[in-house]
Amino acid sequence: MTLIERIKAGDVPKSVEELASEEGVALDRLCRSVIEGRVVVPRNVNRTMVRSIGIGEGLRTKVNANIGTSEDYPFLKEELEKLKVAVATGADAVMDLSTGGDLREIRREILSHASLPVGTVPIYQAAVDALEKYGSIVEMTVDHLFGVIEEHAKDGVDFATVHCGITREALNALVRQKRVMDVVSRGGAFVVGWMIHNEKENPLYKQFDRLLEIARRYDLTLSLGDGMRPGCLADASDGAQIQELVTLGRLVERAREAQVQVMVEGPGHLPLDHIEANMRMAKSICKGAPFYVLGPLVTDVAPDYDHISSAIGGALAAWAGADFLCYVTPREHLGLPTVGDVREGVIASRIAAHAADIAKGVPGAKDWDLEMARARKALDWQKEIELAIDPEKARRAYEERKVPNEETCTMCGEFCAMKLVGEFLGSDRGEKC
Amino acid sequence: MTLIERIKAGDVPKSVEELASEEGVALDRLCRSVIEGRVVVPRNVNRTMVRSIGIGEGLRTKVNANIGTSEDYPFLKEELEKLKVAVATGADAVMDLSTGGDLREIRREILSHASLPVGTVPIYQAAVDALEKYGSIVEMTVDHLFGVIEEHAKDGVDFATVHCGITREALNALVRQKRVMDVVSRGGAFVVGWMIHNEKENPLYKQFDRLLEIARRYDLTLSLGDGMRPGCLADASDGAQIQELVTLGRLVERAREAQVQVMVEGPGHLPLDHIEANMRMAKSICKGAPFYVLGPLVTDVAPDYDHISSAIGGALAAWAGADFLCYVTPREHLGLPTVGDVREGVIASRIAAHAADIAKGVPGAKDWDLEMARARKALDWQKEIELAIDPEKARRAYEERKVPNEETCTMCGEFCAMKLVGEFLGSDRGEKC
Repeated sequence: MTLIERIKAGDVPKSVEELASEEGVALDRLCRSVIEGRVVVPRNVNRTMVRSIGIGEGLRTKVNANIGTSEDYPFLKEELEKLKVAVATGADAVMDLSTGGDLREIRREILSHASLPVGTVPIYQAAVDALEKYGSIVEMTVDHLFGVIEEHAKDGVDFATVHCGITREALNALVRQKRVMDVVSRGGAFVVGWMIHNEKENPLYKQFDRLLEIARRYDLTLSLGDGMRPGCLADASDGAQIQELVTLGRLVERAREAQVQVMVEGPGHLPLDHIEANMRMAKSICKGAPFYVLGPLVTDVAPDYDHISSAIGGALAAWAGADFLCYVTPREHLGLPTVGDVREGVIASRIAAHAADIAKGVPGAKDWDLEMARARKALDWQKEIELAIDPEKARRAYEERKVPNEETCTMCGEFCAMKLVGEFLGSDRGEKC
Repeated sequence: MTLIERIKAGDVPKSVEELASEEGVALDRLCRSVIEGRVVVPRNVNRTMVRSIGIGEGLRTKVNANIGTSEDYPFLKEELEKLKVAVATGADAVMDLSTGGDLREIRREILSHASLPVGTVPIYQAAVDALEKYGSIVEMTVDHLFGVIEEHAKDGVDFATVHCGITREALNALVRQKRVMDVVSRGGAFVVGWMIHNEKENPLYKQFDRLLEIARRYDLTLSLGDGMRPGCLADASDGAQIQELVTLGRLVERAREAQVQVMVEGPGHLPLDHIEANMRMAKSICKGAPFYVLGPLVTDVAPDYDHISSAIGGALAAWAGADFLCYVTPREHLGLPTVGDVREGVIASRIAAHAADIAKGVPGAKDWDLEMARARKALDWQKEIELAIDPEKARRAYEERKVPNEETCTMCGEFCAMKLVGEFLGSDRGEKC
């Protein structure tokens, strides 16, 4: 049974109860949101020992960290280290996007080490398999693709990106569009390439019911991929992107009918003034399904600072309705991220998510900031560091420039201006000068 | 003569002509904006060899980098290094906020090395002088304070922060407010402390005409400081802050009457959902005067990532009307910034400013992104790096993870999906897989 079916049957898992209390929301409201598809709790029936997280309306904005090998860096050990750092810095989920090395082994190792939900993009493995077997990705067979998806589900993957919205119609829109960057979604390009080469409709669209059957069997949450997402500001919010979104909206309804948990993926690269419109449109077209965005990056010109560009877009996106932010690391457009990049990426996205949660009034969000403000007012450095979003890095930065006698304000002399202000206002003392 | 007077007299300086062409705006429109006080061009009559910049409506959003010694780090050499890095990474202006060492020497050295506008907060020096002479900041004499402001102007300072809006009325509002963080503006706290100790009105408010006389003499641009700016999210947009802003709005009109260039400073710490309201209110109350914000930080919990928190707020602020972003370095709440922090801070603010400029439709802003997208599409790594907002760092990040044969896509084999997409769409080739 999927979670939707279980809850409908009155069998609410303990993990969902815990989740409601952790989020500070009423359990019955949370259950209703899951049933109605406005919240997903990605958790494969074959997974144990994993923390449940809720993604969607009214809940804390969640952060995903992409990890995974490439052909040039096929090192499991480094990816497990990234997983560790992602968990330590507060990511809510990870996706294994490996394309190099033994993909099955890597996935299984990540799944066995991860205490949080794990997502994958099965078509990567299907493509690599096809390349090995037939010498070409576009020779991938439909049965093999579905076989790989089932294999991922069987292994315990909690959510999977499937590019179901790339239809012939979307392709036509793409042709008309004359984009600067064409298709930048890797999985999307595989699907488009396959469709062109084989002159066929996208099997993930055409055989969507077959996908739903697999998803039902394992309670695999489907993450409907945005293969047509813009790869630069100039391509943002165009006909191809929105055509795909409209299709995804229809597929969301079919998934809900099948009682399969489903979320929708979104851009990408968007100018600041497109973000709110994109979020509201996605939420409206997809009937409130949880929306999962990559970035969005608000400029194309900041390689090695793309975590910042993405934090700007992510904060605005989450405030306007996105529920799940896929981090972007500084190195996004330059190479495979290092462990250090993963840390920077997770924290940047968490800042964006938290800033949005404060603005959205997510229960408890602003209490953290109030506690920090009080620690600052009290000049309680240790507490300030403990409360920091990355205590380890904050401590290092503080120690580096720390001065002796931190408690005494050496500047103001007998009549400290800050102290006077504090006395005047009846508070103990002001900020450190 | 001030710039406003010169332009009114039909004597438009060559530097303003250059500025118009650099910004891609019509010269007559720019001149009108300066006359009407919606754009300032901070440039002291005693300064030579400085690049003019325009700050205000319709122009590219500018970025300021704060540098300057502290009592614990009174090292001129380090500050000159920060100046160099700020210029190299694209700051539009710097402020010397020194409070340690020989303040006169440091200021003069920075002025003589800076090729861009330099701002100061004269009350810092007046406070340090008072401490040395009388053993207490609050014993500062009014004549000495104005003397120091004149000294800064004589030295060639292009713009100066003066906390003129802290009136007894604002103090009363502050008392009623019961803030978490009281007053976090250092200069603001000096003024408040002085007012409380001496039981007098703020001399910078009371003798505003005296300030205008100095400003007129040197064409010193006044930057009306926000001593009541919130120091944490919980204190944002309160009565004290807005009371001060209302006063600043009146002073803007008096400065305009005196044909003195004037801008207004703003917060600080603001939740995401307060930013637009704050910007529109400031622009409205201050009759379109250029608005200069510090941050704003959208969360208090990110020490050592405050450049990111501030880039989120800065992007939104600039989009909603702020014209000038004061950078915030990662280390803002932990200690005096290092040279590395300056670099991170400038770039983060520039990303925010540029993202806003794209959204605001500033002439030429989006062309940069389009050029980058085309370089990416063509897999032209060298061009991508040259176009990067920080080419040096982008190059390093790229080289670190670079793989041999970068041009060949080793993954897709004979039928590269990306290539197929590119051929199908009639573009040369797609993104690197």
